Amino acid sequence: MPDAPNPPKNQTYSYLGPAGTFTEAALAQVAEARGQIWRPVNNVGEAFADVISGRSFAAMIAIENSVDGGVTATQDALASVPNLRIIGEYLVPVNFVLVARPGTTLADVRVVNAHPVAYGQCRNWLEKTLPSHGHLPSSSNVAAASALLDTTQADAAIAPPGIEKHHDLVVLASNIGDNPNAVTRFVLVGRTAELTAPTGADKTSLIIELPSDRSGALLEMLEQFATRGVNLSLIQSRPIGDSLGRYRFVVDADGHILDERVADALLGLRRFSPKVIFLGSYPRADKRPIEFTSRYDDGIFIEARDWLRGLVGGEPAE
Amino acid sequence: MPDAPNPPKNQTYSYLGPAGTFTEAALAQVAEARGQIWRPVNNVGEAFADVISGRSFAAMIAIENSVDGGVTATQDALASVPNLRIIGEYLVPVNFVLVARPGTTLADVRVVNAHPVAYGQCRNWLEKTLPSHGHLPSSSNVAAASALLDTTQADAAIAPPGIEKHHDLVVLASNIGDNPNAVTRFVLVGRTAELTAPTGADKTSLIIELPSDRSGALLEMLEQFATRGVNLSLIQSRPIGDSLGRYRFVVDADGHILDERVADALLGLRRFSPKVIFLGSYPRADKRPIEFTSRYDDGIFIEARDWLRGLVGGEPAE
Amino acid sequence: MPDAPNPPKNQTYSYLGPAGTFTEAALAQVAEARGQIWRPVNNVGEAFADVISGRSFAAMIAIENSVDGGVTATQDALASVPNLRIIGEYLVPVNFVLVARPGTTLADVRVVNAHPVAYGQCRNWLEKTLPSHGHLPSSSNVAAASALLDTTQADAAIAPPGIEKHHDLVVLASNIGDNPNAVTRFVLVGRTAELTAPTGADKTSLIIELPSDRSGALLEMLEQFATRGVNLSLIQSRPIGDSLGRYRFVVDADGHILDERVADALLGLRRFSPKVIFLGSYPRADKRPIEFTSRYDDGIFIEARDWLRGLVGGEPAE
Amino acid sequence: MPDAPNPPKNQTYSYLGPAGTFTEAALAQVAEARGQIWRPVNNVGEAFADVISGRSFAAMIAIENSVDGGVTATQDALASVPNLRIIGEYLVPVNFVLVARPGTTLADVRVVNAHPVAYGQCRNWLEKTLPSHGHLPSSSNVAAASALLDTTQADAAIAPPGIEKHHDLVVLASNIGDNPNAVTRFVLVGRTAELTAPTGADKTSLIIELPSDRSGALLEMLEQFATRGVNLSLIQSRPIGDSLGRYRFVVDADGHILDERVADALLGLRRFSPKVIFLGSYPRADKRPIEFTSRYDDGIFIEARDWLRGLVGGEPAE
Repeated sequence: MPDAPNPPKNQTYSYLGPAGTFTEAALAQVAEARGQIWRPVNNVGEAFADVISGRSFAAMIAIENSVDGGVTATQDALASVPNLRIIGEYLVPVNFVLVARPGTTLADVRVVNAHPVAYGQCRNWLEKTLPSHGHLPSSSNVAAASALLDTTQADAAIAPPGIEKHHDLVVLASNIGDNPNAVTRFVLVGRTAELTAPTGADKTSLIIELPSDRSGALLEMLEQFATRGVNLSLIQSRPIGDSLGRYRFVVDADGHILDERVADALLGLRRFSPKVIFLGSYPRADKRPIEFTSRYDDGIFIEARDWLRGLVGGEPAE
Repeated sequence: MPDAPNPPKNQTYSYLGPAGTFTEAALAQVAEARGQIWRPVNNVGEAFADVISGRSFAAMIAIENSVDGGVTATQDALASVPNLRIIGEYLVPVNFVLVARPGTTLADVRVVNAHPVAYGQCRNWLEKTLPSHGHLPSSSNVAAASALLDTTQADAAIAPPGIEKHHDLVVLASNIGDNPNAVTRFVLVGRTAELTAPTGADKTSLIIELPSDRSGALLEMLEQFATRGVNLSLIQSRPIGDSLGRYRFVVDADGHILDERVADALLGLRRFSPKVIFLGSYPRADKRPIEFTSRYDDGIFIEARDWLRGLVGGEPAE
Repeated sequence: MPDAPNPPKNQTYSYLGPAGTFTEAALAQVAEARGQIWRPVNNVGEAFADVISGRSFAAMIAIENSVDGGVTATQDALASVPNLRIIGEYLVPVNFVLVARPGTTLADVRVVNAHPVAYGQCRNWLEKTLPSHGHLPSSSNVAAASALLDTTQADAAIAPPGIEKHHDLVVLASNIGDNPNAVTRFVLVGRTAELTAPTGADKTSLIIELPSDRSGALLEMLEQFATRGVNLSLIQSRPIGDSLGRYRFVVDADGHILDERVADALLGLRRFSPKVIFLGSYPRADKRPIEFTSRYDDGIFIEARDWLRGLVGGEPAE
Repeated sequence: MPDAPNPPKNQTYSYLGPAGTFTEAALAQVAEARGQIWRPVNNVGEAFADVISGRSFAAMIAIENSVDGGVTATQDALASVPNLRIIGEYLVPVNFVLVARPGTTLADVRVVNAHPVAYGQCRNWLEKTLPSHGHLPSSSNVAAASALLDTTQADAAIAPPGIEKHHDLVVLASNIGDNPNAVTRFVLVGRTAELTAPTGADKTSLIIELPSDRSGALLEMLEQFATRGVNLSLIQSRPIGDSLGRYRFVVDADGHILDERVADALLGLRRFSPKVIFLGSYPRADKRPIEFTSRYDDGIFIEARDWLRGLVGGEPAE
């Protein structure tokens, strides 16, 4: 089993740019990425295309937001682009500032430029502080801020903290997010490669399509995990998109595919589901060891296989 | 049990405007709304505020899209605004046209104005037809189109069919949505009121918070339905928002709260969950009768209660 | 709710006789039976006929033996005789002595008279001590001993301790049972009557027929208890007898029918099963209070019903 | 995989004797036993001792009776004697005759000699025809009949049909069993040996001890079968015997240990249970092919293992 992949020098990492985004902050947490080439891209599709084509060694993308739930574009792209593998997980606290051109005051603000997600996360503050403002949607948090310098359509923008270091803007208000504990979860995605060794604090990400020919399918899917003592830290339904009522689920399970109980759950899922996508087993961002009862230890699984092999081979019955 | 509420004359219905949206098309399906006052609003929050304040009798809002899944803003608003009740369900086929100022041709299009959801639903067509286009996000499908007349930032816009009847625009391409079967599900939301009688083809909408103190909670929630033979046509996870890993579920169950098996499932959910929100029991848009096995007939539930009452009262044991 | 039934003077209690049986020892534990008429009978059928006809107020019968499992004749009789109700539970330690006519020694013993169940419970001791003995089956433990005085077919008999007080016999060996912790569970059975009040340390006995038209029926039966937090202290399968593979189950559940969680489980069982026989709710012999998690408290059930009633009546949704 | 074991000439088969028992009728169904040595024994313990010591190649024993349920002595012996293996299953219709010494008429019968099980199966007939008879218990059906010739303690005996061919007795009444469809299930038990090949109409017998440290253990045991689509044709609880409330279960599962779904269920059981005894996989007496849904085909299990092996080895993710 190899160690974590160690990229050669001058490898490229794609991320949702431009500089200053939360995604860039996530990439800054990757030790191996320091001193390498960082390539800003416009959306998840570009990021994955970089990885698949080999232009980039890996891409950093947002996958879950404690306020908004799964980042659906990412989840759907992971379900449709083959040969990707999640190789790491990173958490970034999410907070926002309101910025404006120098000379602007809060009282001047009529229209706020903001990415719809950021706008949603600051709604309470905005409604209280700027009750009569209008919203101009933007394609990214950084673009909202930089657009202030190009056009006067908006008077202020919602942006990540630190944006004032990249642009000639002033901060009108800080910590304007409605939830002070908001955090966004990012994953580093590479091409399918050898597995890294289990660390005891791992997570396995899967996308599982439910069979549509029977009721109770979600119940049955969850039992595949429960009967092996595998806890889930994320479960997110996504429509498959061909008709109402058909779903796939994005799931994060505690443990590593090389843990016996996880491997056995994967076997059960594969037998049950028309389509299971293994997105990877990788260390948790919080490095917290996985807890599970001793009845699901690797040794228990191995002993049972030895016992069955003995029975089938004709050894004594017990 | 009263019949479907029959609003007095000159009642107001709120909907996500302006005229020409899919939401307006949904409202046009409501027989009782004909000849009444239709009030366009900017977002779900305004629509619900109209209902709660009494300014409107009811509001039409999108709740599920076969391509994009749950409309999360609606779902979150339903979870946080009390005293609302869904009173009807409506389906609108979703398709899109590409419109432009008269004189524009497809070859001229560099920047496309579009609501992010509509943009996502036309991505395949756009990438094939306009591979080098840019995207200008808009706050609604109709706003994207009408903005063409105010500014030249964009050359074309994605809009609902029929938009050319409201604005001086030409259609460059029709049926540009990636999924020809796409449909959006809308609900008509009023204030809490008396239940309408079951029709045999009903749906019950719920929001259920999972207890966080034990694993397997989702499994346990689903069993509350399965053990009463109640099928689910929608299940959508939403983060509660106070920390990663805590979820509530938006659920549509087959049947009416006055059906015994649904009522019993509600009892089980209430005992199990820290918070269950009953959003309403209402006729399905497709009017398809609910199928369930005879072992979950009302009569079976009533007979069992009679039997238990007999036992507790001291009647013969069988 | 009445207190435990208080029989008038000169009531009759039936028990499997003759004097000296373990069943008589169980009856001796019943405070209310002291000074009343004790009527020895030959088998369970007679005992129940006494109760049904009114000849006896109640009958004491063995229902479970820690070594031999369910006493099947009793269980089958309870399943077929209507209008019976278990009103109390009693435990009797089971041990055996080997008795003989005066003058006999262990070395003289060739044939041992014994009820087949008692014989089975002393087999280890017999094989070690009397390796070449023969077995003469008897219809009861006491009959085996008393037959020694009538015939010389057997040289010794297995009997309950104390038998030498009733008959002119000597004890050749004591404590000859293979399991020193053996205990037999008896129940006092009366006619269907008013329930006695819950004590917090109660047991509910049921006989539940499984539906035969679907697999997984036993699983489904157990879920009726599990989903209400009701533990089982006894589960015993019995063939229904009309064909191989059809079963009913004798079940002892923790708690009283007037406990909400038990009542709700009974409702679920009644809806699921073609036949449920309620045998009674009565105080446990060991008086150990029932343990259950607070989520199954009576208050939780009552609150949920109030909530549902509010919804159905049109009160606010939450 | 070997064919069914083909014993050399002059092999011995043990059975519960004497000649004329239902067990002998079961042995007569075994093609391989024709012309071999048949050894009558007195009880199950002797039969198993013959097999373990090598005195006999195999032993025929009753294991389930449609009226009386599991033959508990057999089930308990199978749970405690190691290195046994069930190699075949046989069904014998069970019916009874009432026999007497020549010259006796029904009107003369005061005392009936009968094995307690046979007596129980004829009780209705006896109570109707001979309402005032007494019962003399016997150790076997054949012994009851032959004792009529040695002693006059009884006037008649319950015996298997055909007994009059072995003894100078007359038949007073035929078909006196209460259930005309009664059948007893026998198994042929040998020493642990190589498995025989699956036939598509196989049965797997197991004894499974429940873990005692958690509630819901029986539910969990049943789920091991249900989640692999394995039906059970027998489930019989037996007390473990060291204290009240501890159980093991005797289970017959549809299918062969070499069927993937059965093997996987065995793995799950072994991981879950403190003790699983594999008693054997063998052809069903009724030769009825096992039915199971295609989602549990061998191919599904094999494909899932190949898929997992690919993932662990670093192959593409899907």
